[in-house]
Amino acid sequence: MGEFDLIARYFSRPVPEGYLGAGDDCALLPLRPGRQCVVSTDALIEGRHFLPEVDPLTLGHKSLAVNLSDLAAMGATPSGCVLALALPEVDEGWLSQFSEGFYRLANEFDCPLIGGDTTGTDHGIMICVTVFGHVTPGTALLRSAAQSGDDIWVTGSLGAAHIALKLLQGALPHNDSLLAKTRPMLEQPCPPCLFAAQLPGLAHAALDISDGFLQDLGHIIKASQCGAHVIFDHLPIDPAIRNLSEETVQEAVLSGGDVYQLCFTAPPKHRDAIETLAQQFHTEVSRVGSITGGGGLLVETLDGRRVTCANMGYQHF
Amino acid sequence: MGEFDLIARYFSRPVPEGYLGAGDDCALLPLRPGRQCVVSTDALIEGRHFLPEVDPLTLGHKSLAVNLSDLAAMGATPSGCVLALALPEVDEGWLSQFSEGFYRLANEFDCPLIGGDTTGTDHGIMICVTVFGHVTPGTALLRSAAQSGDDIWVTGSLGAAHIALKLLQGALPHNDSLLAKTRPMLEQPCPPCLFAAQLPGLAHAALDISDGFLQDLGHIIKASQCGAHVIFDHLPIDPAIRNLSEETVQEAVLSGGDVYQLCFTAPPKHRDAIETLAQQFHTEVSRVGSITGGGGLLVETLDGRRVTCANMGYQHF
Repeated sequence: MGEFDLIARYFSRPVPEGYLGAGDDCALLPLRPGRQCVVSTDALIEGRHFLPEVDPLTLGHKSLAVNLSDLAAMGATPSGCVLALALPEVDEGWLSQFSEGFYRLANEFDCPLIGGDTTGTDHGIMICVTVFGHVTPGTALLRSAAQSGDDIWVTGSLGAAHIALKLLQGALPHNDSLLAKTRPMLEQPCPPCLFAAQLPGLAHAALDISDGFLQDLGHIIKASQCGAHVIFDHLPIDPAIRNLSEETVQEAVLSGGDVYQLCFTAPPKHRDAIETLAQQFHTEVSRVGSITGGGGLLVETLDGRRVTCANMGYQHF
Repeated sequence: MGEFDLIARYFSRPVPEGYLGAGDDCALLPLRPGRQCVVSTDALIEGRHFLPEVDPLTLGHKSLAVNLSDLAAMGATPSGCVLALALPEVDEGWLSQFSEGFYRLANEFDCPLIGGDTTGTDHGIMICVTVFGHVTPGTALLRSAAQSGDDIWVTGSLGAAHIALKLLQGALPHNDSLLAKTRPMLEQPCPPCLFAAQLPGLAHAALDISDGFLQDLGHIIKASQCGAHVIFDHLPIDPAIRNLSEETVQEAVLSGGDVYQLCFTAPPKHRDAIETLAQQFHTEVSRVGSITGGGGLLVETLDGRRVTCANMGYQHF
């Protein structure tokens, strides 16, 4: 199968009115008067970001999810995406599943696939997705916008993806039941896009937790030139991992990556509004601490024990 | 060197007023009232799109050039770009040269690098660039817009990149002088962006010649449901390759890829305007044939010999 047949068969579903989809040199997005364009790109490399034997349906989902998560972290509404795909061979079963997983999530969040590039490769699979979104100018949630006194919030739960990865890598003892419960969090993350798009006006700073909670919160306090005080007991530990050893749980929750949930800061006066919004969009939110004027990043238990973590998160090299 | 240091050192040059560059979850583009957003993405894979020993300065240039070429093919003006880069190792000399080549071209065409993603890989180098541009809504040059009676135009010259590739692959006899003359066309293509951005209103259909002139013109006539009559003698054969055998020249000109010049169609009444525009933007243009109501794609010499070509262009798998 040639490149054009492959695109025609797997990546040419209709695009909404106002878009130009695959088939020309570029794709076109509709005019959005008064909205600013938001952009993010993420590459997934076989052996680094996914295991070769991963289910292509979940891989298609995740390729887009990690990018939607970046849009959510800005408080942006998705507009569309493009996909570059390098494949060592044309495996129709794989392509059918991969594209299905990708399109399902794209449909769920009105983020049409409008273009891309496919190529062969002598190496492993490479997937690069670029997403576009829109915000009212001046309202994007920046890492640098946290203010002293802000609450720190986290959506969803922490730690499950990290435990699933450890199990798949054999770094934790074999446990089918635990793997079954945690694996969807690793392979099919669901970023809180709808909730996040309503945060501008309520929240100050936000980012998505991809490299680990501590490292990512560290980005906020560095960019905002402030400190943070986190209550470990208030962190949303995923129920599936609560029975593991304290040390394992702490590492998973504080430094486990691949979460694709949000950490955001907001002034205390918006607590009720945020709780209401979370209910409306079926998004779990936890208030886990507060932004301080300085003093770095402190994590304590409710009874005053300081929690430390050797591994500060994921480094990409 | 970690990911953040790498980005800080090589990919964090200032962005223009109104943009948000690298450092947050997404990049922001300025609001452009009344303009529609145009998008394209292209991946370059080591071993497929470039040889491992290629000069990183020219590779940085080419990574962006092939994408700018897609914007030019829509008649769009560049707005910015993002870069995803997977590297098997952090080679500071390579990164310094690659980023310099990339930024030089980005500066030349006011296409700021505003974000990206860097990751390690266990495979070869992978480069994925996504470019954004803007057009007045409804004026983008589509492949499907050619009309019977249109002139067919080509910018720049044809064939040199193909000959350079053959020489580098050892498929043509060693010839240092010929390689020196043709190699820049392969490794440092310069798409006619400024000229192309003025074509809406004058031209009907356009695309960039990346897969070979015949195959690419074939895309236009298929999408526009028309035919084409091309005079081989009017095709702009690159001066550097004119002394090669007739067969070699024909293959290079008709089916050689990696050209990144435009093929566009326009009504004869705009001939003078197009010539004037070409002079203004120092762009070579050649009028090479005309669009017909049907009858497929016919290439003839001035004395009426039909020219055929076995190899119809590049297939990506």
